[in-house]
Amino acid sequence: MRLAIDSMGGDNAPKEIVLGAMRAVREYKDIHIVLVGDEEKIREYLTNEERIEILHTEEAILGTDEPVRAVRRKKDASMVLAAREVAEGRADACLSAGNTGALMAAGLFIVGRIDGIERPALAPTLPTVGGEGFVLLDVGANADARPEHILQYALMGSIYSQKARGIDSPRVGLLNIGSEEKKGNELTKHAFTLLKDADINFIGNVEARDLLQGVADVVVTDGFTGNMVLKTIEGTALSVFGMLKSALTGSMKSKLAAAVLKPDLVVLKNKMDYTEYGGAGLFGLKAPVIKAHGSSDANAIFNALRQAREMVEHDVSGTIKRAIEENRTNQ
Amino acid sequence: MRLAIDSMGGDNAPKEIVLGAMRAVREYKDIHIVLVGDEEKIREYLTNEERIEILHTEEAILGTDEPVRAVRRKKDASMVLAAREVAEGRADACLSAGNTGALMAAGLFIVGRIDGIERPALAPTLPTVGGEGFVLLDVGANADARPEHILQYALMGSIYSQKARGIDSPRVGLLNIGSEEKKGNELTKHAFTLLKDADINFIGNVEARDLLQGVADVVVTDGFTGNMVLKTIEGTALSVFGMLKSALTGSMKSKLAAAVLKPDLVVLKNKMDYTEYGGAGLFGLKAPVIKAHGSSDANAIFNALRQAREMVEHDVSGTIKRAIEENRTNQ
Repeated sequence: MRLAIDSMGGDNAPKEIVLGAMRAVREYKDIHIVLVGDEEKIREYLTNEERIEILHTEEAILGTDEPVRAVRRKKDASMVLAAREVAEGRADACLSAGNTGALMAAGLFIVGRIDGIERPALAPTLPTVGGEGFVLLDVGANADARPEHILQYALMGSIYSQKARGIDSPRVGLLNIGSEEKKGNELTKHAFTLLKDADINFIGNVEARDLLQGVADVVVTDGFTGNMVLKTIEGTALSVFGMLKSALTGSMKSKLAAAVLKPDLVVLKNKMDYTEYGGAGLFGLKAPVIKAHGSSDANAIFNALRQAREMVEHDVSGTIKRAIEENRTNQ
Repeated sequence: MRLAIDSMGGDNAPKEIVLGAMRAVREYKDIHIVLVGDEEKIREYLTNEERIEILHTEEAILGTDEPVRAVRRKKDASMVLAAREVAEGRADACLSAGNTGALMAAGLFIVGRIDGIERPALAPTLPTVGGEGFVLLDVGANADARPEHILQYALMGSIYSQKARGIDSPRVGLLNIGSEEKKGNELTKHAFTLLKDADINFIGNVEARDLLQGVADVVVTDGFTGNMVLKTIEGTALSVFGMLKSALTGSMKSKLAAAVLKPDLVVLKNKMDYTEYGGAGLFGLKAPVIKAHGSSDANAIFNALRQAREMVEHDVSGTIKRAIEENRTNQ
């Protein structure tokens, strides 16, 4: 299979992207990678070209660019060309660590929606205390959602977890402010009734407090709430680790003790590192489009490529397409 | 001033409530406390009756009771009687660590809304890394909100921070998924335009990621999102601390180092303990009604009583009433 990578997006491009790509071709003999970006800059880090090719372009979308406009106007941007590789059948999936909004626009306009999917959803996999992780969607592809969108998110998240994460019967929870059926706002109350009748393993409402404890494999919510929860988890974890760091370096005595504990603390921090689980999938498009974290290092890029490979290998997009068709026929 | 306490609500009632009340009358010579609840059980812990009286009742609202029905039917429940003390002018404020929904119902039906306040809001003060804290509202008094409600939350939060927390010109932020004015869902976009013109120190959108860094003194949002963010902060902090604990007790070596660090870690944990900042105020009622955390110990009850005292002393309810009247006249 062929994977196209925007090699100029993210804080550590192109270096970490090239390193991650080289690791991926080393580990997976069935993938070919197209590095899209400035050939000269890419070559600085490319030490092995086996099953890797470069698609040269000097244009790139910046983090500060207005997403939709950038995708429309910068027709030769590395991100746009990577999406075009997929749209025109020369690649099976694409990946970028660049401007999230622009990647969503490129996915929507260039790769295209699956027929019947009203809104694609951005779906990261977040860490849990036990290490199994859970898929949260939508985290902001669309700020407002209708109950039918939430139903589609649930179908897509469930299929992804089954196919790409190997979970037999993924537990799907509706993010809500209480566990009882009648809790919540208008949106969640309506969404609950749709989810109850859907052909998924719906376990009811789940509360934000229990997310990191692994209460569900797939958690669905509107993009505004999902984004809020994602950012709150990030912010809280960072703040607590930051405070921990100051606490542990406050005195000579604590510094010494902290040095002893460092390996344990690194393990702990890695456990909370969601780039281990890959990037955020943009679900509902004709082919997998993966958003890697902006600060991705080679390891994160490797994990996102592994995830793209799983999605292609197990035909997640095709399965979603068929499920949506069935769902429409049944209604 | 007189403060009425539901002595039978919460996980540690009545013991910790009685202990907290005794500490409060010891520290503040200007308060009288009415302990509402089972006299016999209260007397087990009451060792000093100076400026404390008991209003006996054997009925109580349980955590599992359906809130509105419980308040309507259990007319002699300790929580209901405490609210009635306020409504009938025998107390200036009331407090409970019991059923949150029931306390909101008791506040609404018994104490009553300020004229012009469409929806009271539940407003806890959350910890920040720097220790200054911030008021978040609404966290779930109403799941759905309209832009005008968000405006009223902002006015109430600002007045509370000024009067009871002593902040000159409280920075009010609108919780949103991006900092730019046009970001967000329909609700936040409309609320932004109202807040811009309000007579408060509106600093624009704030992101969930920055909350614990002290980005604003007052953060306003709808009850669904606020509850979600509150529970996510709690859940994430608990999960991280839980993982930290396992990491630090994994080996003998780490146990020893952890013992050295324990004082620093306790300080850290206390920093994240929001009961230090008091309970959650139910803003928009004719008198202060405070919800203390269900797991409150004597110290948390003391802090919530101190907060109730500040709110009465600085006439927060009266100031909100006047501000709402002015706001209506200006429109």
